[in-house]
Amino acid sequence: MVKLQTSLPELVTDPATIRALTQEAREQGKTIGLVPTMGALHDGHLSLVKASTEQCDLTVVTIFINPTQFTDKNDWTEYPRDLQSDMEKLAGGEVSLVFAPTAEDIYPHGHVTSIHIGPLEKIVEGRCRPGHFSGVATVLAKLFQMIPADTAFFGRKDYQQLKVVERLVQDLNVPIKVHGCPTIRDEDGLALSSRNVFLSQEQRQQALSIPKALKLAERRIEEGETDARAIVAGMRSELSCSGALHIDYALLADAETLKPVTTIQGPTVALIAVRVGSTRLIDNEVMMPQR
Amino acid sequence: MVKLQTSLPELVTDPATIRALTQEAREQGKTIGLVPTMGALHDGHLSLVKASTEQCDLTVVTIFINPTQFTDKNDWTEYPRDLQSDMEKLAGGEVSLVFAPTAEDIYPHGHVTSIHIGPLEKIVEGRCRPGHFSGVATVLAKLFQMIPADTAFFGRKDYQQLKVVERLVQDLNVPIKVHGCPTIRDEDGLALSSRNVFLSQEQRQQALSIPKALKLAERRIEEGETDARAIVAGMRSELSCSGALHIDYALLADAETLKPVTTIQGPTVALIAVRVGSTRLIDNEVMMPQR
Repeated sequence: MVKLQTSLPELVTDPATIRALTQEAREQGKTIGLVPTMGALHDGHLSLVKASTEQCDLTVVTIFINPTQFTDKNDWTEYPRDLQSDMEKLAGGEVSLVFAPTAEDIYPHGHVTSIHIGPLEKIVEGRCRPGHFSGVATVLAKLFQMIPADTAFFGRKDYQQLKVVERLVQDLNVPIKVHGCPTIRDEDGLALSSRNVFLSQEQRQQALSIPKALKLAERRIEEGETDARAIVAGMRSELSCSGALHIDYALLADAETLKPVTTIQGPTVALIAVRVGSTRLIDNEVMMPQR
Repeated sequence: MVKLQTSLPELVTDPATIRALTQEAREQGKTIGLVPTMGALHDGHLSLVKASTEQCDLTVVTIFINPTQFTDKNDWTEYPRDLQSDMEKLAGGEVSLVFAPTAEDIYPHGHVTSIHIGPLEKIVEGRCRPGHFSGVATVLAKLFQMIPADTAFFGRKDYQQLKVVERLVQDLNVPIKVHGCPTIRDEDGLALSSRNVFLSQEQRQQALSIPKALKLAERRIEEGETDARAIVAGMRSELSCSGALHIDYALLADAETLKPVTTIQGPTVALIAVRVGSTRLIDNEVMMPQR
């Protein structure tokens, strides 16, 4: 055995095995951290892993490209997959288990159950991707049952997803804490995303309008602007300047309900989704109005 | 303290308390049986309690008249309620805990999540009561999280509900066994139901057509009849003879999928729902065709 191999986490593909291993750890009094991912791991994911290994005795990373949360089947087919590379990124002994099941393991023949998160799944990102958040909520509810974790770690980059998970856990009384971790950005300001690999150098440059538009909104709110329409106009103008981005949405919403606001009064989230060529990117920033 | 009081089970109304007490029992290595009910307990419920106390160290009976599973609000308002009488029926030391929360405990402000069980929630009984099985599935998923039981006990009298629960548990990977218990009948053959108290003596006599129609179907299948339409015609004729029953449905279905069948080939369930005056009664019998 060479050192490198022994330092890889244990790979599990079977729901019964991951349940048995995590249940056993729990019975030994160990705390369990869960980091659900779709693989194609980048430093954003690794920051979630770090938060988990710092807080929990045992960390489980799941890698599952969940078909039911893809509205567009091409998007699912083309989503980047490289389990070997992901395993190597998780090497070093901090992550105990990687759970990478197949779609048939998760959705065996006859599976019909789905979870719905009311209005929260239909607005903003949910309007662009019908069924997406129901798919996310259902697969996470299943993972939360298979892996009796103390805490699950999610990036704030997928802000609406984080709110959906918080709602799911609260409404279904799942005994797990949800921990939202800060968005990790490249030096140029672009939020890390598995989809960034699809961007050409030119497209990447154009995509920098996204963090710039968020910064602009942040600055306007810091300056005391409370008219959401005026701020959104500024954001859209920034996003439009290259002429290369198709704006799916750019808006200011209540940070809890995600309902769009006209006046900035309380915690507010700026939410952006754009398409650059055929690549779709989302980003957000949470802001507090000046008093 | 008088003896009678100490022999009553402990009453808990708060989700956090029931979770803590049952989690503690689990950590002590005790097995937990869960008997979810809407109260108005009769010998049918008590047979579930008996099955649980025989199999498990600790039995929790929940009493919650779940508003979201009532299609008709009047039906919810008029559903029989008598917690004191229910507690007395559970006296004797066998049941450890009764969990009787309020609707606000279960559905606090902001609750939006619901669970759907695909085609199974829309057919037969689900067609008569839109939203009913989604309400059942959602509240049970919540109870399964609050109370980490080993086994949950349900009556086969509510046959489609039993199938919905089995599907829910399997699809969401809930680590709990579902145990279906036989229907308990009065000496005259009528299945026990909390709604039977609403029947006049005459209506009760008329309602006996239900078990008679089920017996008839059973006998015809034993005799080798495989034409479902012929058997259903006989069932409907039996149900119609008093002229007092309104038939919501009377059919033969696949015992697993509950899809109506035209030819009896495998395990088959005869399902009946009728209204007698303003009281709705359901019943069923599972049958195997002759080989």
